[in-house]
Parts: sequence; structure tokens; C-alpha cells
Amino acid sequence: MHAENIREHLRKFTRLPHLAGTLQNLRLAEQIQKEWLAFGLDSAELVWYDVLLSYPNGTKPNYISIVDQHGEEFFKSLLAEPVPEGYEDLTDIVPPYSAFSAQGKPEGDLVYVNYGRTEDFFKLDREMGINCTGKIVIARYGKIFRGNKVKNAMLAGAKGIVLYSDPADYSAVGVEPYPAGWNLPGGGAQRGNVLNLNGAGDPLTPGYPAKEYTYRFSPEEGLGLPKIPVHPIGYNDAARLLKNMGGTASPPDWKGALNVSYNIGPGFSDDSKRNIRMTIHTYNQVTRIYNVIGKIRGAQEPDRYVILGGHRDAWVFGGIDPISGAAVVHEIAQASGKLMQRGWRPRRTLIFASWDAEEFGLLGSTEWAEDNAKILQDRAVAYINADSAIEGMYTLRVDCTPSLQTLVYDVTKQVGSPEVGEEGMSLYDSWHKRDNWTDNRDAPRINKLGSGSDFEAYFIRLGIASARARYTKNRKDTYSNYPVYHSVYETYEIVEHFYDPTFQRLLAVARVRGGLIFHLADAPILPLNCLEYAHALIQYAHGILKIAQKHPEAMQRYTVSFDALFSAVNNFTNAANDFHQRLKKVDTTDLLAVRMVNDQLMYLERAFIDPLGLPDRPFYRHIIFAPSSHNKYAGESFPGIYDALFDIESAVDPARAWDEVKRQISIAAFTVNAASNTLNPVA
Amino acid sequence: MHAENIREHLRKFTRLPHLAGTLQNLRLAEQIQKEWLAFGLDSAELVWYDVLLSYPNGTKPNYISIVDQHGEEFFKSLLAEPVPEGYEDLTDIVPPYSAFSAQGKPEGDLVYVNYGRTEDFFKLDREMGINCTGKIVIARYGKIFRGNKVKNAMLAGAKGIVLYSDPADYSAVGVEPYPAGWNLPGGGAQRGNVLNLNGAGDPLTPGYPAKEYTYRFSPEEGLGLPKIPVHPIGYNDAARLLKNMGGTASPPDWKGALNVSYNIGPGFSDDSKRNIRMTIHTYNQVTRIYNVIGKIRGAQEPDRYVILGGHRDAWVFGGIDPISGAAVVHEIAQASGKLMQRGWRPRRTLIFASWDAEEFGLLGSTEWAEDNAKILQDRAVAYINADSAIEGMYTLRVDCTPSLQTLVYDVTKQVGSPEVGEEGMSLYDSWHKRDNWTDNRDAPRINKLGSGSDFEAYFIRLGIASARARYTKNRKDTYSNYPVYHSVYETYEIVEHFYDPTFQRLLAVARVRGGLIFHLADAPILPLNCLEYAHALIQYAHGILKIAQKHPEAMQRYTVSFDALFSAVNNFTNAANDFHQRLKKVDTTDLLAVRMVNDQLMYLERAFIDPLGLPDRPFYRHIIFAPSSHNKYAGESFPGIYDALFDIESAVDPARAWDEVKRQISIAAFTVNAASNTLNPVA
Repeated sequence: MHAENIREHLRKFTRLPHLAGTLQNLRLAEQIQKEWLAFGLDSAELVWYDVLLSYPNGTKPNYISIVDQHGEEFFKSLLAEPVPEGYEDLTDIVPPYSAFSAQGKPEGDLVYVNYGRTEDFFKLDREMGINCTGKIVIARYGKIFRGNKVKNAMLAGAKGIVLYSDPADYSAVGVEPYPAGWNLPGGGAQRGNVLNLNGAGDPLTPGYPAKEYTYRFSPEEGLGLPKIPVHPIGYNDAARLLKNMGGTASPPDWKGALNVSYNIGPGFSDDSKRNIRMTIHTYNQVTRIYNVIGKIRGAQEPDRYVILGGHRDAWVFGGIDPISGAAVVHEIAQASGKLMQRGWRPRRTLIFASWDAEEFGLLGSTEWAEDNAKILQDRAVAYINADSAIEGMYTLRVDCTPSLQTLVYDVTKQVGSPEVGEEGMSLYDSWHKRDNWTDNRDAPRINKLGSGSDFEAYFIRLGIASARARYTKNRKDTYSNYPVYHSVYETYEIVEHFYDPTFQRLLAVARVRGGLIFHLADAPILPLNCLEYAHALIQYAHGILKIAQKHPEAMQRYTVSFDALFSAVNNFTNAANDFHQRLKKVDTTDLLAVRMVNDQLMYLERAFIDPLGLPDRPFYRHIIFAPSSHNKYAGESFPGIYDALFDIESAVDPARAWDEVKRQISIAAFTVNAASNTLNPVA
Repeated sequence: MHAENIREHLRKFTRLPHLAGTLQNLRLAEQIQKEWLAFGLDSAELVWYDVLLSYPNGTKPNYISIVDQHGEEFFKSLLAEPVPEGYEDLTDIVPPYSAFSAQGKPEGDLVYVNYGRTEDFFKLDREMGINCTGKIVIARYGKIFRGNKVKNAMLAGAKGIVLYSDPADYSAVGVEPYPAGWNLPGGGAQRGNVLNLNGAGDPLTPGYPAKEYTYRFSPEEGLGLPKIPVHPIGYNDAARLLKNMGGTASPPDWKGALNVSYNIGPGFSDDSKRNIRMTIHTYNQVTRIYNVIGKIRGAQEPDRYVILGGHRDAWVFGGIDPISGAAVVHEIAQASGKLMQRGWRPRRTLIFASWDAEEFGLLGSTEWAEDNAKILQDRAVAYINADSAIEGMYTLRVDCTPSLQTLVYDVTKQVGSPEVGEEGMSLYDSWHKRDNWTDNRDAPRINKLGSGSDFEAYFIRLGIASARARYTKNRKDTYSNYPVYHSVYETYEIVEHFYDPTFQRLLAVARVRGGLIFHLADAPILPLNCLEYAHALIQYAHGILKIAQKHPEAMQRYTVSFDALFSAVNNFTNAANDFHQRLKKVDTTDLLAVRMVNDQLMYLERAFIDPLGLPDRPFYRHIIFAPSSHNKYAGESFPGIYDALFDIESAVDPARAWDEVKRQISIAAFTVNAASNTLNPVA
């Protein structure tokens, strides 16, 4: 694999916008299909689905305005971002919008709700006595998924929500706005969908692929659609709205970096007769999307799949998101083709996927997972995600299931550091130096898989061992995402000028992602480590116990015990140790014996799936890993228990709430025990 | 295998009552465990669960009475059945009762509701104008599961329901009551549970095994428990209750064979002040039950399981139900042990199961399925059910998944007919002669799997290819079950004197059940036939279309089309044909190639499982086979579509009801397509 190739792929794929559902994005799919075939893949096909997408009305723009007592708009937010140099002639740059926003023209007093988290609305309601019912709220981007901000605003009774990027969250210190630097300019705004899908995929066909014969809910019954208008603005416009806010003063940690008071409202201090109006004409439409699915048939075990998937659709050019990742996938496909020309064929089948409509709720990847759920459950060894390959200039970031940790370390030891001055140093050492996992071990930090990219259906719904890897910023940097995230300023040039001028970082990520899939596809014994899963489960169990123990009296009163969970984790640890011992003695010339232990390793992740799903979230079925319903515990493990513990804080009936905690502990204990059994001797 | 051995097993296992949850049934489990180990099985263990059972109060009997205007009981139903000769000294024969009945003493007018089917209550309500609200209803046993009668009575507003065995349904013509013959005596009554579990297993732990750490619903939240008292009586007592019924006359087909008017009521004609009173003290109690699980480890593929399972618990002696079946399992286990002494070991693992508490809602088998769901999904090749091995004296009866039909035919061609005068004739020919499948092919009839025995969780929840086989009555005989079903008269002697004096019929069933598991465990290529599945799906699709076409106008108005389903069935047929062609060319010396096609065959049945379940029945997940919610279509295929079509008849909003039909067609089409994909080339 070569840095120069990745540079060329990135350049080629970012010349035009390729929003999901547009002709350009179909053309790009066809181009990728053609090139994958030319590289030498056995097959590459387009797989379409007809899913609900959302677009701004081409003739009636969306905006936010301030109106006077006569209803006259005397201030209007920008209708589009200033277009970067070299792209001025393009006519199909979609302006910033919140996909799947409700239509409408709500008008009312503005209330500033900080990040729009559950705890922010709690504070407004319980400590400040501010009622959001009938108000338009303004929330800054960051901390949690924007769809949750919208859900929280709806629950608080707001009739509209404005989202904006505060420089405190979208500007790095000492960096210039693009194009002089890589910070977000004041006219830039973050696009994004505002759904609450919880893993359902297409809102009209939850659970089933959106094919021609598929039953569709009516648009009003669509799953996860917000009921109120939503719109994103940049910080210049936000400053204008926030400048003269009246009402209560903000707590210190609610203040961003704009030169405004951050008063909470409701309404303005200078003229109480002024109102905020949202004008939203965005519409939903069932639209055809296209995944590209490429395959290299496995030589010995064609019925075992290793999947490398990432999305292709972008809000505009996708210089970072997702094409920095798609360029890496392309180079891995090309490298695979070269290997095949030299006579190589992997032991297992390799599947390459270019997903569509990730930005609209992980739709392409989820529909394909629904379409192929049965064969994936039977046959998929691992899923490696390939969204943006870079989001910072500091070091590697890996999120993966515990059983893949060992492989990640092994692979990164074989890859060189891309950093200047670290010639001859391994990526592992470079990463270790920059981000030591001090609270766990003396090794590079590895994170849990959360959500927000295409691995979701594969990992959280189907239970396929998954991982993602990209280059990232320093954990000490406090800004959210990367500043130009989902803006028109995500160009090829921002990567070339700032993020990775030599393309060595993207090459390093390509070697990690590629190394993972090649090892998984070729190793006679699957490189999945059940001991690491045991180690992780012990930590997670202690973590969840610690949170529960904040309520010692209630735990005693309602006889809440974690003994069953710890006993199950202990069973799992013993089973994993015994399995590992037996694994060492497997006769690797006995094909069926090898297949048997590999099946145990492959199905281990599947064992954590509960077909009944998490409470009220039927498509989140992983008992160890799922996004929490409440941002407070996002990224924590045992999501069922966490959510139940969270609900205690607002429970009307504590006995019932603690009963649910007990039920969730029981389900977790059962699931961990069942997973242990999959590692036990088979007969 | 020897008839004499089966006779001895039956004799030995039926000396004492062994109701689930009693010490005798634990002792019997221990005995079976010990004997299986002595036979030479690799292991045999007791596996316990703590499930909700239901027993009559030992000191306060249940009964039905007629009370006069002063509330005096001047007639009381029998408190127990007359005990058959030779068993008089036993103290622990449980009297007839409806397990899980609510407690209470409801009193009111009696209404005769025929079989208590949906259509019977429709007729009462719509044609006769008889309101059951606040009434006690009396229903005759037969046609549908008793739990559905109770559910229908509750829906109709009844405050209690009496169940009785009418001679029209529980006496064969020209046969004497036991002990002179095998008909039900007038004092006999049918025990049985009256739950509506829909596959949930233990009512307090749906979805999870009832272990020590498992969260339990409170008894009031228990799944499927009736809210009204229920009690079964014999036909002598029923005649007394029905004798002087007043009110409307019965339609001709509502009349049974008692010498009474079968007037519907409400109330009595001779004295309207008389009431019926039910006195029910039955109580529910969490009780420990024990499965016996025996294993013979497979030599080449220990991680592939073939399961032979049947229940051990009986209402009283279980001469027919279940010990005629358990004796057969015991003989198969013994025969396996003998083969092992000669050096045999099956290619795949054999699992023998003696289930507990089947009579209380398939509890032992369902809890074990829940406990082992993950490894069963990964590894189970087939489940062969072994409930009662005989229910008549006429010929073989087989219910199985389509893919097992070919094996059933092959096995029965290798077994001899047990009928006198058919020496040298195969069981296949004997069966063919007596029950030709004329509406399908010139071969013995094979039925679809319904529900009502322990295969349910394995087949309908987990999607494991399943079959059951027993000796049965002539289809032309109109009585339900066999007359003494669930009464104290199910003794060893009724089998020895009437059903199978030479034990040749039970031996033939043993050879069928045994032949199935030995072939499934030993054949290098799994004897599962996907072409038969294709053939069946075509028929089922035509069957369901025909029912829908009873509403041609509505189908047009609501644009209801079955095209997607037929297209999917066509895809499946093509995939099955292609698979079958490829199968012929498989290099049987290529261990991984053989394993691959076997996995496709094994997972085919799994492909029909929808993790989301059928509407409102999360544990019925098989899209092709599940009991219908409505008795009218019991035993039909595509239960989701059938139920939706049924609901049209009582729909308030026909547009919405037809929309649900369309949704169910879409789900069925998707599932059949997904199943086709599992048969397609793997890469």
C-alpha cells in the first residue's frame, strides 16, 4: 500500500459532493465497483435499498430569524456557508440543515439549554425553574449525539430547536479558521441527521430490508423522526441570537467562547417583544441508495466472512468524513488484488463494503445487515469499520470488542509510526507513548465501541466482533469531533494542507485496518482472544457495581445484589482460561477440530446478543455494549443495568425502579453465563 | 431393540404417580440417570429449574356444585375419579383439576358454549344474542387446546369455566369404558393446564431459564395465567349440570352424546333460582423440576447435536402420556449403549432428554432451551420429540418439518409393520395403505408440526428441524385424543390389554424414532432435504392465497398482492434445486466442503426464525410454522398472515386490518428470500 495511492483516491473521490440519494453518489458507486473489479476482486455489485431520506426544499430555504412585534424579520441566519476557493462553480452543495427535521414555522421566546443533555434540562427544570414548554431552544453542539438533544428538547416541550457550533467546542486554540487553518469559520455549520433510531435503520422498514416488496410504515409512523423543527447555524449567527438574551444568568460551565452573556432567557433583554422564528421546509422522501459489495472468495473456508465496511456518502465533499476512510478501503482493495495476482487467496472470504446513506442514520449498512442477517449470523467472523481514517494529528485511536484487542496490538507492532522523527519506531510504540492505557495496563489505550458509525448493526444488533481504527487528536484537546466536521470545509485540501500532508498517517491507518482483515481472513486459528473478554467483563462488572453503590441504603432496602453477575463473570473467566488451555493443544492438522474451536471463537460475540433486545430498544441487542439511553452513561458497559440505574434518579416508584435494576442484573448474569457455555467443551 | 424391554420399561415407570414437582418424579429422574449411565452413555445429569407449578389444595377440595336459592349445595361434582383396580392403596393420585386455575367461588347462571372456540363465542354473541358476561360457562373438551377455551371464556366476560369430556368426543363407538375397554368411564375427567403461554415457558421467567439467580415476575404478573376459576369434570357430573338447562336450544352440531337437551341457558329451566357454584382452591407455587440430560459425544463432529427428547412427568401413572414414549427413549438409549460396547460412536453428539413439567406448559424443555439457546442455535442439527408413542391402534402418525420427510420415509421403509398379518411388510407400506397422502402425493401422509409438546421451543422458537412420530388411531375416528387422556385410567394395563399387547407397535415407534436420530447423527451428509421444503412452501403459499381470495373485493380495494411471496417461494425453489445439484458433486473426502454444505442444511430451518417474533407472541418466531392465535386456522402455515386474515372478520377498521395482512405478507416474503440466500453459494 502506498501513501501516494491513498492521496489519489482521496483527491478523485472528493471533487464533487456526493450526498446520499443523488446521482453523483450513484456514479461514485459505479466507479468504485468498476475499480474493485479492475483490482481483481472476484465480484463487486451494487445493492440498492429504497429508504427514507431528507432534503432541504430547493426553492424555499430554511433559516432562523428574529422578528419584531409586527412579525417582520429583521435578522435572518445565513442560507448557505461561504464556499471554499476552487469549489465556487458547484451548484449542488446542500446548505446546512438538520436531516429529518419536521417542517414548520414555530415562533416564540428563545431559551439557551447548553448542550441539551438530560442533565441540562434537569438543571433548567429543577434548579432554575425554567419551563421550556412552547419555547424555541438553542443548544450548542457537542458532548452527545445531536438526535438526543432534539429528543430531550421534545420531552421538555420545546416547539423547535436551533443547534449551533460554539467556538469553545469547535475551535482549537491557536488555530486559524479554514482555509488559513483547520478551525471552523464563523459561517460554517454542522449538518447532520436528528433521528432517534436506536439501530433500526430505515425509519419506515425497521427490522427488514427496504426492498421493493417491503411493507413501509406511513411517514407519520416513521421510527425515530423528530416532531419539531430543527436547524443548525454557525457561530456568527448564533452570536446574533444569543447577544441580547435576557432572563437568568448561566452557570459558569454553560458559557461558551462567544462574546455574549449566555443568559438563558426566555427571550431577549433589549426588547421583549422580539421573537425567534424558525422557517423549515425540509422534506422526507423515499429514495434509492446503493451499497457497493465486493468479495474475494475464501480458498479453504469460503463460508467464513471477514468484512471491511465504510460509508461513501458525504454531506458535501467528505474530505475527512468519510472519504479519508473510503480512500483507505480502496487502497486495501487494490493491495488485495495485487496479492491475488501473485497467487494469494485468503483462507476465508473477504467482503468489502462501500455503504450509502450513513449520514442519514447508518441506513445502507443497516439495511444490508437486515437483508443478510441470517448468513451473517451463521458466517461472519469479524466486521472492521472504515469511516473517517483521520480526525486529528496526534496518534492512533482504536475502539474494538475486547476479543480483538490482542490482534490490534499485534498488528500495530508490525506497522511503522507515521510521525516525523519516529522513523523506525512502531506505530504501537508511538501510540503507547502518546496514549498509555494507564488505568488498565501499560499499553496503548483501546476504547469500547459506542455507536455513530456503520459497525452498529453488525456489532450491537448481530453480535459480530468489530473494531474501528483512525488517527485522532490528543485526548487533552477539548473541542468536539474535529472543527470543520460536516461542514463544506471538509475538503481534500484540509487533509493535504493540515491533517496529513505526506499521507503517512492515512497509510498507517490503512495498514492497521488492512492488517486486521488479512490476519482475520488468513490465520488458521482465529485471532480472537476470549481471555481479553474475561478481563474486560471483570472490569465492567466492577464499574457498574460502583455506580449502583452510590445508593447503599436503597440497595439494602430492595436487596439488590450483584453476586449473580460476579458469579457469571467468574464462570466466564474460568471457561475462557480452560478454553485457552485447550486451544494450545489443538491438533492444527485436524481440520474439523480447528473449525470447531474457530466456531466457538466466532460465536462468542454472538452469545452476548439477547434476541429480546434492550428495554424499548429491540434493535440494540448486545447485553455488554450498547449506547446508553442517557448520555450520562454513554459508553458504559452493561447498558441495561446502567439505564435502569439512571432511571432511579427520576423514578416515581423507587421499589419498581430497583426491581428493574434487579431484572437487568439477572439478564446480564444469564447472558454472561450463556457466553461461558459457548466456550465450554462442546459435549 | 426389543419389545419385551419396552414393556418392562413401561411397567417399571408406571407403578407410581410421578407428577412434576413431586419426590416420586425426582426419584424417577435419578433412576433414569442411573440407568442411562449403566447403559453406557458418556454422561447423564440432572438439570433443575425452579418454575411455577400449580396444585390442588390438599385439604380443601375443588368441585362444582348446584346451589338452591338459599345457597345450599344440593349437588356436588366428584372430588376424585374412581381408582382403577390394583392402585387403590396409593395416596398421592392428584384429583382432576385445571392447573393454574384462579382461586375463587364464583356463582351464577350456567351457559353452554359448545367447544369454547372463537367461532362458538361469535355464534353466541352475534347469532343467538347470548351474553356470557358474569356467567359461568361450560365447554366440552376437544377440537382446540383447553387453554384457548379459557382465554375465549375470559374474553367473553365469563367469571368461571367448567370443562367436561362429552362421550361424543371421548368415547369410541362399540368400546366399553375402562377397565372392560379403553373408553373413558363416566367418572373420569381430563386434567390439564389452562395457560396461554405461547411458547414462553415458566410464566414467571419468560425468555430466561428459571435458575436461582433469575429475576421472577410477581405471581400476579405471571405470563398466561387465567384470571378466572376453571375446573374439569367427567360426563356423569356434566349430565347432571346440563340436564335441566333452559334458554335457547342448541344448533344440531352443538349437541354431544349425553341424554340431555344441550340447551344453552343461561340458567336452568326447572328452577331459575338455582345457580352453579365453582369452589376452587388450587394454588400456584414455585417448585423445583428436573430434566435428565444424557450425552454420547460425537466422534468426528462433537459440536453438532442430535436431540431425542420427551417428557417424564405425568398427571397420574402416565401409561400412555408420556411413559409409552419415555419407555421408547429408554430402549433407544439402551440400544445406543450396546452399539457403543461394540465400538460404535456416532459422528455427531447424541443428546437424550427426559423433560420434566411438560404437563404444566412444556416447562422443563423450554427452560433448558432457554438455558442453552446459544449453543443450540449454533450446533443443533435436529430435535426428535418423544411424547406418547401410541394414541391409537391403527397406523403410524408423523408430524415433521418438510426437510425431514425424506428421512422419515427412508427410515420407515427399513422398519417392519407391527400389525398382525403384515409380517414381512414394511412399516412404510402398512402406513401408506392406511393413510395415503392423497391430496399431496402417493405416499403416507405427513402432518405439519403444531404445538402441544416439547418440540415447541426447539422448533418454533429456535428453528431446529424437528419431528415426532407415534402410533395413532384412524383419522376417520371422531373422538378427541384417546378417550382416557389425562385421566387416572392411563395405566400400564390399558396399554398391555388394549393398545399394544405384543408391544410391537411401541417397538416400531422406537425403530422410527431411533432410526431418525441414528441417521441424523451418523450420515456424513445431513439427511435434510431442502427440495421438500421448497415443495411445501409452494403449497402453503397457495393455501394462504386461497384464504385471502375469499375477499376478492377487499383485496382489490386495498391492493393486497401475494406476488412478493410467490416470487420469494420461486427464489427458494431455484436455490433449493441449485443447492441439490451442487450437493451431488461435493467431494465427500473434503472435510471442510462437507461441513460447509451440512452447515447450510442445518441452518436452513434457523433461517425461518424472525427474532422479532409473531405479533404479540415474542416466543413464537417461526414464520412458516406456529400455532395460529385463532383455533380456526390452527395448523395452517404462515401463521402471521393467517392471523391477520382472521382478524379482518372482526376488524373495526378494515383498511388497517388489510394493511396488517400486507405487512405480514412482506415479512413472509422477506423470510423466505432470506432462507433462499442461506442455500445460495456461500461466496
